[in-house]
Amino acid sequence: MTRVVLLTDFGTADGYAAAMAGVVAAAAPAAAIEHAAHDIAPGDIVGAAVALSRYALRYPAGTVHLVVVDPGVGSERRAMAATIDGRHFVGPDNGVLSLILEGAERVRLVAVERVGLGPDAAPTFHGRDIFAPAAAHLARGESLEALGPPIYDPILLETPSPSRDGNGVRGQVIHVDRFGTLITNVPGAWVRGSEVPAECARVRINGVDVGPVRRTYADVAPGELLALIGSLDHLEVSVRNGSAAECVRAGRGATVELSFNA
Amino acid sequence: MTRVVLLTDFGTADGYAAAMAGVVAAAAPAAAIEHAAHDIAPGDIVGAAVALSRYALRYPAGTVHLVVVDPGVGSERRAMAATIDGRHFVGPDNGVLSLILEGAERVRLVAVERVGLGPDAAPTFHGRDIFAPAAAHLARGESLEALGPPIYDPILLETPSPSRDGNGVRGQVIHVDRFGTLITNVPGAWVRGSEVPAECARVRINGVDVGPVRRTYADVAPGELLALIGSLDHLEVSVRNGSAAECVRAGRGATVELSFNA
Amino acid sequence: MTRVVLLTDFGTADGYAAAMAGVVAAAAPAAAIEHAAHDIAPGDIVGAAVALSRYALRYPAGTVHLVVVDPGVGSERRAMAATIDGRHFVGPDNGVLSLILEGAERVRLVAVERVGLGPDAAPTFHGRDIFAPAAAHLARGESLEALGPPIYDPILLETPSPSRDGNGVRGQVIHVDRFGTLITNVPGAWVRGSEVPAECARVRINGVDVGPVRRTYADVAPGELLALIGSLDHLEVSVRNGSAAECVRAGRGATVELSFNA
Repeated sequence: MTRVVLLTDFGTADGYAAAMAGVVAAAAPAAAIEHAAHDIAPGDIVGAAVALSRYALRYPAGTVHLVVVDPGVGSERRAMAATIDGRHFVGPDNGVLSLILEGAERVRLVAVERVGLGPDAAPTFHGRDIFAPAAAHLARGESLEALGPPIYDPILLETPSPSRDGNGVRGQVIHVDRFGTLITNVPGAWVRGSEVPAECARVRINGVDVGPVRRTYADVAPGELLALIGSLDHLEVSVRNGSAAECVRAGRGATVELSFNA
Repeated sequence: MTRVVLLTDFGTADGYAAAMAGVVAAAAPAAAIEHAAHDIAPGDIVGAAVALSRYALRYPAGTVHLVVVDPGVGSERRAMAATIDGRHFVGPDNGVLSLILEGAERVRLVAVERVGLGPDAAPTFHGRDIFAPAAAHLARGESLEALGPPIYDPILLETPSPSRDGNGVRGQVIHVDRFGTLITNVPGAWVRGSEVPAECARVRINGVDVGPVRRTYADVAPGELLALIGSLDHLEVSVRNGSAAECVRAGRGATVELSFNA
Repeated sequence: MTRVVLLTDFGTADGYAAAMAGVVAAAAPAAAIEHAAHDIAPGDIVGAAVALSRYALRYPAGTVHLVVVDPGVGSERRAMAATIDGRHFVGPDNGVLSLILEGAERVRLVAVERVGLGPDAAPTFHGRDIFAPAAAHLARGESLEALGPPIYDPILLETPSPSRDGNGVRGQVIHVDRFGTLITNVPGAWVRGSEVPAECARVRINGVDVGPVRRTYADVAPGELLALIGSLDHLEVSVRNGSAAECVRAGRGATVELSFNA
């Protein structure tokens, strides 16, 4: 069973997401349609990229990910389709695939020009008139290359990079999740790979001391701040049964420091 | 694969929507169950009708749309099932199918009286005890007529109608979407069909000048108001990357005017 | 078609729920994945237990319910799988299955120890690394017992019990739904089984007189308070087309009294 998995910022109540699903259902009758999320904040390409990076490669090869967070709809931005490590992706060429592309081994990218309504597409709803038909095309097992010419220069998000030296690591919060967890751009390997055991390092965020890097929430008392390597394998700052975002008043872009000689 | 697509105002957290899905799954084991939306505002029949009109006919023939926005549950309002242009519909006879019926070519309507728990149905949850069994019946390919006697006088919403003369068009906002876009009842054909090119007409909403009718968001600067023909093929008023509803403080019922000799 | 039905407090926007779905899709390719809800309040085990009790047994035998509301993730709480009256369940052993277990006839419970990543699981995301693989195992038709050793002492929620004597019944609100309906722990049978007809009894909540027990919303005028036996077969207090929770300022734990000699 081929699955088409939708991710948008359309909400559900207006029926936009269901219109995309209906187009897929009509053009790829055997595909199972799943909804990852439709409550990405309007226009939040980074939030969508982070969410997608969490689940896209958990799905089996052949899955089609239909991703429409598209504040530039109707402008000259390209429509893109990709096969990345065996999974297919369809969406605007605006950086939403950046995090998936970063870690990918096998990548093919094309511009979507030869399916969908093309110039007859509603200029405000390419999700329905271009991206959904392209996703159905791939779900039916037809070729990526049939969609259009190759793309070699996809738009990538300019996200801040973490830095490190012998004394520690400096990074940024890239996402705040539903639980108020602050997810940073510091890879878990940088923490594990230091000469100092993680439990001897100190983490500070927005100037607040969060203590050493712990293993899990239960290592601190309820209501306490802690740092740990999260399920995305990045350094995170949480409050057990609470919200770190509220507690340290930090959001996307806040600075996190990891010091090895605290 | 037959799909049963749910649309309700039940939310998801209470398990009401999942109870309906479970009843369908038990009675129509081969059907795929999809969720269009469960966050229609409580009791908002117009909002559900607008959402449904966006997606229902995008799904292929044979799809079953299970629509339960039912503030009159337990009163004397009828339970209805329909086959409209090849798709099936099940829900209360309260106007929620109005917009689909307006544009339909082939319509059969029946009262649902012979499936489901009938008089044993929970008087507060016909969605589970009457509508879901009827949807499963149709998903199994059984006949519409077996559900009950024909209905010839379905309840239709009394929505305001737009009017026009040689100088322009006057209509109303019928829906505000997640992005704050004001969707009006003025059909796109009335704009395209005027003697004056759309780009020479002027749109005013709540007395605010919105300028001519544009093609897409990118035709104005970010933060600017614009009018365009939206993906439902109706006149809409938006703010590029913002909310027109907030910007002009307008909501459902607000007056929109299109003037051809501005 | 075997269905795996997810219930969590993860929200959807962060991609956690979709990561679980992806793991199930990869390990049980033929399973249909459905989402009951992901907007359970963070950590609200009682809310999840109530929602689950509404729908779990409506699904047919063989369905796998994957339930992850897990504030104790990473602590010593056990991972549990169960077969209860023909349906399978996977989730933390923290009481979330209590209400299903209460009414069950045939129950088998095991600790999940032999599938999933085990000690390599992300200590903050057992939903993805332990529970989802266990759900896929059951969806493939493999045996419950293969997952791990039996559990004989599952954690049960300590919920308040209603009491009754010849004059009446005293209970508590256990849940407030999306519509503001106050759902109590008083079983419908206690109301129907009294010597006094329901329409002669009087219901009070938080000291406010709600009148007799009605059949459905339409038995009172819009905006009026009423008591009725709800679709869970429990005593409920509602406002027709309004919110009882707001109207009587009551929430979970509020006292409800049913008097037979009012």
